[in-house]
Amino acid sequence: MKSFKTLEWIGGIDGFLELTDQRKLPGEFIKLPCKTVEQLYDAIKMLAVRGAPAIGVAAGFGVCIAAREIDSEQKLCGAIEQLNKKINYLSQSRPTAVNLFWALDRMKTVAEKFAAQNNDATILDLRRALLSEAQKIYDEDVEMCRLIGINGEKFIIEGCAILTHCNAGALATAGQGTALSPIFEAAKNGKKFKVYADETRPLLQGARLTAWELKQSNMDVTLICDNMAGWLMKNGKIDAVITGADRIAANGDAANKIGTYGLSILAKAHNIPFYIAAPSSTFDLSIKTGSEIPIEQRDSSEVACFAGIPTAPKGIDIFNPAFDVTNAENITAIITEKGVIENPNPAKVKNILDTD
Amino acid sequence: MKSFKTLEWIGGIDGFLELTDQRKLPGEFIKLPCKTVEQLYDAIKMLAVRGAPAIGVAAGFGVCIAAREIDSEQKLCGAIEQLNKKINYLSQSRPTAVNLFWALDRMKTVAEKFAAQNNDATILDLRRALLSEAQKIYDEDVEMCRLIGINGEKFIIEGCAILTHCNAGALATAGQGTALSPIFEAAKNGKKFKVYADETRPLLQGARLTAWELKQSNMDVTLICDNMAGWLMKNGKIDAVITGADRIAANGDAANKIGTYGLSILAKAHNIPFYIAAPSSTFDLSIKTGSEIPIEQRDSSEVACFAGIPTAPKGIDIFNPAFDVTNAENITAIITEKGVIENPNPAKVKNILDTD
Repeated sequence: MKSFKTLEWIGGIDGFLELTDQRKLPGEFIKLPCKTVEQLYDAIKMLAVRGAPAIGVAAGFGVCIAAREIDSEQKLCGAIEQLNKKINYLSQSRPTAVNLFWALDRMKTVAEKFAAQNNDATILDLRRALLSEAQKIYDEDVEMCRLIGINGEKFIIEGCAILTHCNAGALATAGQGTALSPIFEAAKNGKKFKVYADETRPLLQGARLTAWELKQSNMDVTLICDNMAGWLMKNGKIDAVITGADRIAANGDAANKIGTYGLSILAKAHNIPFYIAAPSSTFDLSIKTGSEIPIEQRDSSEVACFAGIPTAPKGIDIFNPAFDVTNAENITAIITEKGVIENPNPAKVKNILDTD
Repeated sequence: MKSFKTLEWIGGIDGFLELTDQRKLPGEFIKLPCKTVEQLYDAIKMLAVRGAPAIGVAAGFGVCIAAREIDSEQKLCGAIEQLNKKINYLSQSRPTAVNLFWALDRMKTVAEKFAAQNNDATILDLRRALLSEAQKIYDEDVEMCRLIGINGEKFIIEGCAILTHCNAGALATAGQGTALSPIFEAAKNGKKFKVYADETRPLLQGARLTAWELKQSNMDVTLICDNMAGWLMKNGKIDAVITGADRIAANGDAANKIGTYGLSILAKAHNIPFYIAAPSSTFDLSIKTGSEIPIEQRDSSEVACFAGIPTAPKGIDIFNPAFDVTNAENITAIITEKGVIENPNPAKVKNILDTD
């Protein structure tokens, strides 16, 4: 159902990465070619590409771009040294993005292993190995999304209405998204239903991105302000809530975009199921409960201004947490590519994560 | 504690109405003089003055402006006819504003009664009677606010943090507001406490108006996005919620700005008291429960654009209810100028409204 490419490698070994520039959405649908490491660095830093899985996939291809920039006449060991410098540079584009580091590390390991095992190989050979690995990361992401969709599709009942928050959609992944994947999958299976998208203040990812990508895919989507969700529930207009997650503790407590916790309380009060859809890589088993998850405070200008125009008095105090944590007991089920964890608890989380 | 005038009659019988232009806040603090009926009509229509009590007070003075514009050489009966035309014109400035009609009717009755009882009086005499009545409406509004403040002040505990939604503040009244009045009163009594203001999408009355007026009055105010309230409650940062109301049914169900219902559910889930502060004139005893209150749907452009810049895809479906209804059972107490209705029910509501 996804009718656009979030990101795509264009051409063969001498190709480049093309991104849907998410800064321009929903006003303009523009492709941003990234042919140099600097271009990709800027694209990640300035949020032309965003969403943890999509950043990881972009970083994988970023190493292919980096490999094209190194001196092709030298020995492999020198090439690896040059490559690692560029990988290090790319890793600084978004300092807190776990998938960025994960993908860069994976590519780095592939490069080093290839160099160690193939003494006589050329830099072109190395580049072929890297492109193959980056494409693998891409394909795995598409498959992860697809499996989340297949596993979560059953929760979307014919004729129902789903509420989602922020954007954990196709734009945040190479595939058809995480939270939105069951929605795309259900639509693919011919189910008719309605989606409500919270606009998601302060950065409006729901209004700008989720509403855009669902409309692009001809879904029945209605935009609301965040503070309208409770009233919709009260009026029987919401049958289920599905959001993504940024980090999930060993007990199932899930950190996600600010506002998710409040939605989970509202859903509970109205006996509406509340689902989290996220890849298994989102789980951080080193964290026992959500209380250990640090919450990023972001700049007050995000709340105080829109497009440079003040929305609040100058110098006003602003509290702007980017995330909140939803208690496991508020979560009806966590949908992963490995399976569904209903009424999550530490044993069930471990059980699903141990699945091959 | 109120450090500015929402509206004020400047000068004597030949004076004019001066408004704080709320369209310019918080960027600019500009006084808007209304010297003609047309100027006041535009000011009400274009929201330079807003808030039910403030509109009523402005309309009272509007009849004084109207009376100055009529032919002063004619007989009183002719003057009344001319005046009623202008009153009728003013009544069309905001077709659903109950306080507007109420104040215009009251002024009209005063004019007609004056003409009937004072055959030999001049139009100048009539104008004096009208200015006196308009000033009385103003004074009653100030006193109503003050009494709400005095009655609600006890709910604001030293060191606590209060959350409010939208603007039911001094800017919405001639006095020190309704929901914000207990806050101003507690501060006047030397209590130290914190106020959180929801920005209140889509029109941002909390960010633009509540944050501005509390800051103007040197209160400790912090602005948040609507979707952050639940997380603040979870973290023990909110001790009470106080909002205004637009209409209250006989059983205590209260219609207020969209988002209020959701806050009441969140407050309940966190054992936080939830107060409504509103004048007794807000009660509509012809309505048994909140389900009979019609909810105004407003234009989708309020959600889809900010300052003319799109925030959502063109043509996206938008649901934009202006109000919601909070069930009486979610309301800890309704604070009125006549007294406090704890755990509101029909008998208690009737009892307080019957108080002189």
